[in-house]
Amino acid sequence: VETPVGVVDLARTRANARRAVEVLADAGVAWRPHVKTHKSREIARLQLEAGAQGLAVATPREAEVMASVTSDLLLAYPPVGETKLARLMSIPHEVDLTVALDSPEALEGVARASRQAGRTTGVLVEMDVGMERVGLGSVDAVADLAGRVVGTDGVSYEGIMFYPGHIRSHRSEQAEALDRLSERLDGVVDGLTNRGLGPRVVSGGSTPTLAGSHRLPALTEVRAGTAIFHDREQVALGAAGWDDLAYTVLATVVSTAVPNQAVVDAGSKALAAEERGGDGYGVLLDRREVRISRVSEEHGILDLTDTDWSPRIGERIRIVPNHVCVSVNLQDRLLLLEEDGAGRLAPVDARGRVAPGEGP
Amino acid sequence: VETPVGVVDLARTRANARRAVEVLADAGVAWRPHVKTHKSREIARLQLEAGAQGLAVATPREAEVMASVTSDLLLAYPPVGETKLARLMSIPHEVDLTVALDSPEALEGVARASRQAGRTTGVLVEMDVGMERVGLGSVDAVADLAGRVVGTDGVSYEGIMFYPGHIRSHRSEQAEALDRLSERLDGVVDGLTNRGLGPRVVSGGSTPTLAGSHRLPALTEVRAGTAIFHDREQVALGAAGWDDLAYTVLATVVSTAVPNQAVVDAGSKALAAEERGGDGYGVLLDRREVRISRVSEEHGILDLTDTDWSPRIGERIRIVPNHVCVSVNLQDRLLLLEEDGAGRLAPVDARGRVAPGEGP
Repeated sequence: VETPVGVVDLARTRANARRAVEVLADAGVAWRPHVKTHKSREIARLQLEAGAQGLAVATPREAEVMASVTSDLLLAYPPVGETKLARLMSIPHEVDLTVALDSPEALEGVARASRQAGRTTGVLVEMDVGMERVGLGSVDAVADLAGRVVGTDGVSYEGIMFYPGHIRSHRSEQAEALDRLSERLDGVVDGLTNRGLGPRVVSGGSTPTLAGSHRLPALTEVRAGTAIFHDREQVALGAAGWDDLAYTVLATVVSTAVPNQAVVDAGSKALAAEERGGDGYGVLLDRREVRISRVSEEHGILDLTDTDWSPRIGERIRIVPNHVCVSVNLQDRLLLLEEDGAGRLAPVDARGRVAPGEGP
Repeated sequence: VETPVGVVDLARTRANARRAVEVLADAGVAWRPHVKTHKSREIARLQLEAGAQGLAVATPREAEVMASVTSDLLLAYPPVGETKLARLMSIPHEVDLTVALDSPEALEGVARASRQAGRTTGVLVEMDVGMERVGLGSVDAVADLAGRVVGTDGVSYEGIMFYPGHIRSHRSEQAEALDRLSERLDGVVDGLTNRGLGPRVVSGGSTPTLAGSHRLPALTEVRAGTAIFHDREQVALGAAGWDDLAYTVLATVVSTAVPNQAVVDAGSKALAAEERGGDGYGVLLDRREVRISRVSEEHGILDLTDTDWSPRIGERIRIVPNHVCVSVNLQDRLLLLEEDGAGRLAPVDARGRVAPGEGP
C-alpha cells in the first residue's frame, strides 16, 4: 500500500467500542458515537454491533452516508442553509432524524424543510455549558426555544444537547468540574420540567469526560467519538492508555540527509499541523522517544535526539497523531488490520461535503 | 452551493499568474509552479497558458494527474517505495519526468524502476540551503551524489534543486539573506562545474522570495506555488497585497447564541488549524476587522469585538485562510468565479494518494 495511509487496528477498535458501551451502561447512559472521528460505514457498523444506540453526525454528508447503517441519527450541528437542508431531507423517511440547534432561524428552516418533505424531524435545543462555542446560556433562553419547538409543525421537541468541550483537564482532576456541570444540568432539567418541557433526551459527553459520565445523572446519552480510536491527546488527558491507540499513520522514511533527524512522507496533509503545547505533531507508536518535531505539507521531521535508532531510507514507521479526527479526514482510505495481520482497504466514506463524483 | 466551499476568483488568479511570469522573466528565470496549492487541472492549464514552463509536483498522484496537462514534470520530492515508483513510472513516456532526491538509496530505486519501465528519468540533486528539512549540506556531498547519477543507467543528471523555506522575513527585509544564498549557490555551481558536473538546471524559489529572484543569478527556474492564490501569510510577508487574494472559503453563519461572536460552518476541516502567531485562523475578506479566533472541526468562531457588523444566521461570508494550500486540500471541489459572477464547480483533481474509486 502507498504511504502515507491511516491504519486501523481492528482488535483495539473493537475493544475500545466494548469499553465505551460498558462504562456508559454502568452509568445508565446510551452511547451515540460521533462518526466524525472515522467517517466510515465499516467502523460505524462495528460500533453498532458493540451496542451503540444510533449515531451522531456533524454534516449532511455524514448523515446521508450513515443513514445506510442506522435508523437513528442525530445531526449534532445547527442545519442552516437550503442546500444542507435539502441533503438532510433526502435521507430515507424510515430513518429517525433529530437535529440540534440554538436559534429560531435554524428551527424555522428545519421545520419548513420537514413539512415540505412530509416528515417530522426531532429537535434538541443546544445549551452552552462553558465552552462558549454554540448553545444558549440561560434556562430561560433554552425554555423559550424549546417552547417554540413544541409550537411548530414539522418538528418534535425531544430534549436538550450540550458539549462539555471546556473540560480538558486530566481525567483524575475532573471531579469538581463534572459536579458543577451536573448541578447546572439538573437546574436546566428542573427549569424545563417546571415549564412542562421536561426533556426526554439529555445528550452530552466527550471522550475526555466519558469515564466520568456517572457523575451526571441527568444524562441519557453520550456522543463521545474519539474513544473509538484515541490519539496522543487522549493519552495525555488520561482518557486512554498507550495500548488503546487504534489509529496510526503509516509513513516511509524518505530522507536522512540532515543530521539528527529523518524525514517521512507524512506531513500536515496526512497528520494535520495541530500542535500540542510545543510538543510536536505526533510520536512513533513503537518508539515513543521519537517525536514529529516539525511538519511541512508532505514532510514530517522525526527528531532523533533521544533515540539510538538509525532509520534507513525506505523504512516504514507508524505515527500516533495528536488529533485522530483531523488525520482520518485527510486520508482517502483506511487500511483495516485484523489481529492475524490480514489487511484490507476501506474508504473514508463520509469525508467532504458531497458524494464522490457528484455533480454541481 | 453547499458551504463550506473553496472559492477561486479567476480574474485575480490570472493576474497572479501573469505577474509571476513577468517578475521571473525580468530575472531571466522560468516559472515552474508547484501544483500543491491548487491540485487542479484547470488552474494548472491557466498557469501554463500564462507562460509557466512545466509544473512541479510533490506526490505521484499529483504527477499522474498533471501528466495530462503538461509534458514537463518535476517531482520535487524524493520518490521512495515501490508503490510510489510504480505510480510514477506509469506516467506516459512522452512526459519528460524529473525527480529531486538526496540519497543513493532514492537514486537506486528511481534508476531501477526507470530501467524496468524502459524510460530515462531526469534527476536533480537536492541541497539544503538553511531550512534543514531535506537536502545535502556540503558541495562535496552534492557532487558525490551528482557523480553517482552520471554513472547510473536509467537516469540523467540535470542539475540541483533547493527550497529556501527558511527565508520567512518580510519581502522588504530579505536582501541580505538572498545575497548570502546567492553566494552559497554560486559556490555550489562552481564546485560542481570544476568537477565536470555543471548543472543545466538550478531549481529554487518560494512565494515569499519570488520578487527577489533577480538576486540569485544562478537560478534557472522557480517553483513558487502559493503565488497563484496567495493567503493571509503571504500578505503578512509582503508577497501579496489584499487585492491579490484569489482564494477564500465561503461559509454560512450557523449560530449567534454566544455574545460577541458568531459561528460559521468552516472549521479545521475547511480552513485547517494552522495558527499564525496567536492571531487566529483566518480573516473575513470583506471585513478585515473580523478574525477567526478559534476553530473546532466544523466550527469557526468569528470574533466580533472590533466590528459594528451584526451577522445574521444564514448569512454567507468569505474567509481568507492563513495557509491556502492546506485549505484547498480539505475541499472536495472549488467554485471558480468569473469576473461577471458566473461560477462553476471544478474538482480538486490531485487530492489524496489514489484516484477516486481506485481499488486496493
